[in-house]
Amino acid sequence: MAVRILWAGSGTDWTAWQPHLRDGFARAGLDVDLSRDPDAPEEVDYLVYAPGGPISDLSPFRNVKLVQSTWAGVEAIVTNKTLTQPLARMVDPGLTEGMQDYVLGHVLRHHLNSDFYASRAPRDWSADTPPPLARSRTVGFLGLGELGMACARSVASHGFPTLGWSRKLKRDKMVTCHAGDDGLEQVLAQSDIVVLLLPLTAGTENLLDARRIAGMKRGASVINPGRGPLIDDDAMIAALKSGQIGQATLDVFRVEPLPANHPYWHLENVLVTPHIAAQTRAETAAQVVVENIRRGEAGEPFLYLVDRDAGY
Amino acid sequence: MAVRILWAGSGTDWTAWQPHLRDGFARAGLDVDLSRDPDAPEEVDYLVYAPGGPISDLSPFRNVKLVQSTWAGVEAIVTNKTLTQPLARMVDPGLTEGMQDYVLGHVLRHHLNSDFYASRAPRDWSADTPPPLARSRTVGFLGLGELGMACARSVASHGFPTLGWSRKLKRDKMVTCHAGDDGLEQVLAQSDIVVLLLPLTAGTENLLDARRIAGMKRGASVINPGRGPLIDDDAMIAALKSGQIGQATLDVFRVEPLPANHPYWHLENVLVTPHIAAQTRAETAAQVVVENIRRGEAGEPFLYLVDRDAGY
Repeated sequence: MAVRILWAGSGTDWTAWQPHLRDGFARAGLDVDLSRDPDAPEEVDYLVYAPGGPISDLSPFRNVKLVQSTWAGVEAIVTNKTLTQPLARMVDPGLTEGMQDYVLGHVLRHHLNSDFYASRAPRDWSADTPPPLARSRTVGFLGLGELGMACARSVASHGFPTLGWSRKLKRDKMVTCHAGDDGLEQVLAQSDIVVLLLPLTAGTENLLDARRIAGMKRGASVINPGRGPLIDDDAMIAALKSGQIGQATLDVFRVEPLPANHPYWHLENVLVTPHIAAQTRAETAAQVVVENIRRGEAGEPFLYLVDRDAGY
Repeated sequence: MAVRILWAGSGTDWTAWQPHLRDGFARAGLDVDLSRDPDAPEEVDYLVYAPGGPISDLSPFRNVKLVQSTWAGVEAIVTNKTLTQPLARMVDPGLTEGMQDYVLGHVLRHHLNSDFYASRAPRDWSADTPPPLARSRTVGFLGLGELGMACARSVASHGFPTLGWSRKLKRDKMVTCHAGDDGLEQVLAQSDIVVLLLPLTAGTENLLDARRIAGMKRGASVINPGRGPLIDDDAMIAALKSGQIGQATLDVFRVEPLPANHPYWHLENVLVTPHIAAQTRAETAAQVVVENIRRGEAGEPFLYLVDRDAGY
C-alpha cells in the first residue's frame, strides 16, 4: 500500500519541490501517494509542513508518524497546541552551505570595510586604514547548532580566531566554545564581529539588549541571519547611532517585510537583506524529506527531531 | 664588523619598518649598521629597496650581496639596466594573508551579489535570484605564484570549484591546474569569477584582451588585485558596458591614482579600490628582510630570488 504523504506547504514551493520529491521517492524505492489534498486526514502517514500553509489544526492527522518541517526555524509550529505528532526540523545541506556563503561573505565585508570603497564618491583614491589580518580579528558566534557551528568552522578555517556560545557547552577543535551567562559576556567582550544564529526561544528573545551591547567592543559589527527578535531593536538602533555598534548586517526582523518607516532602512551603517541568508533549496532539501520518510518506513529513527521542551 | 645595510625605500615606510628591522636583527644576533645614508655606496652590503625611493642608479653599489625589494611586484626594478646584483622579491606572509582576505572577500561579494542589496533604495524588500551554492560556481585564477596559489586554495577551501592557470604547469590537490594557450582558454571559458594574480611581463601585458574576454562566460566577474596592465582597458570597458563582463573589482591600474575622468570610476558595475589588496605589513615583512640578510651572512642561499629572464 502506498505511503500517504500530504504537502502542507505553499503552492509556489510545491511547484519547485514536487519533481525533486518524486525523483527521490522513486530512487528510494518508495511507493508513495504524494498530494496536496487534505481530505481523509486520519489516513495521512506523513505531513510535509511549512508555516503559513493551508493547515493550522493538526489534530485530525492522528495517524501521522512525522510532521516534517520544510523550514529550519520551527518556533511557529512548535508552539501550535494541536501538534502532538513527532516534529522534525529541516536541516538542508544546501541551506547550510548557502548560510556559510552569506556569513563568511559578510564577515569579510565587515573585515575589509568594503562599504567604505563601494559607497564613496567617484575619484576618491584615499584608502581606509588597512584592516588587521584575519588572524588578529575575533569573530564570535551566538548559537552553535547545525548552522552556527558550520558557519563558525568556515570562518575559523579562513584564519579568524573564532569563539562560540551555546546554551549547553560544546567542544570543537576550531571554535573556542563557551556557555552560561559568563561565557556570553566573554564572547561579546572579545569579538570584533558577532554573528547571531540562535533559535528563537523565551530565553533568547532580546538576548542582545542594551546591557549586553554595552559589554561589546566599541565599534564591533553585528550580523544577524538568525531570528529578528534576538535583538532589542531600540537598543540596537541607539548603539548604531552612537557608534557602539560600528556596522550591522541584518537579514531577519520582527516584522517582515521590514516596514518602510523602520530606522534600519535609513541608517548608513546598516545593510538590510530581505531574509535571504537561509534559503532552503528544493533540490537538496527534498532529499532530506525523502530520507526521513524512508527511515520511518524502515523502522529507523528519524533525523532532526525537535525537542519540544527546549523549543528547537 | 657591522653588516652595512642601506634603506632605499620611502621615508614613511622607514618610520614604520625601522623598529621591526632593528628588533629582528637583534633577535637574529646580527651586528648591523642600518641607515638611510647613501654615502660610500661601495661599502654597502645589502640594499633594502622600494620603487620610487631615493636611488635609481644601482651601479655604484658594486659590493652589494643582495637587493631586497620591499615589494612583491618587481617589474620596476628588474628592468633597471644598472641592476647587476642578485634581487629578491618580498614574499610577506602578512601580505599573502591580507591578499587572501581581499580575494575571498570579493569573490564572495560577487557570488552573493552583495552590491544589489547595498546599493538599492531603502524600503526595497525584493530579493535577487538566490545565488547558486559555492559548489556550483567556478572561480579561475590566472597566476599561481605565492599569492595566486594561496588565494586559490582559500577559495577552494570554502567550496568553490577552483581552476588555475600559470606559464609552467603546476600540480595541486585543491586547484585544477592548467597551462599554455589552450589551458588559458579553458579556464576563461569555465569560470564564473576570474581573479588576476599574474606578474607583469611582456607576455602578460594585455593578457585579458577583447578576444579572450569574448571567450569568457557571459556575465562573468573579474577581480584584479594583480597588475593594471594585465587588462586591455578599452576592451574591458566595452565588455562592462555590454554585459559580457557582469561586474569587476579592480585594485590596480596603468596610472595610479586612477585619473578622475577614467570610465572605471563611473561604471556602476565596477568597484575601484585604491591599490590596497597587496599591502606589505612592516611587522611581518621586516622579518623576511632580516632572514635573507641572516642567510647571506651565514652563507645560506637567499629566499625569493628573482629570475631576471622570466622577469619575476
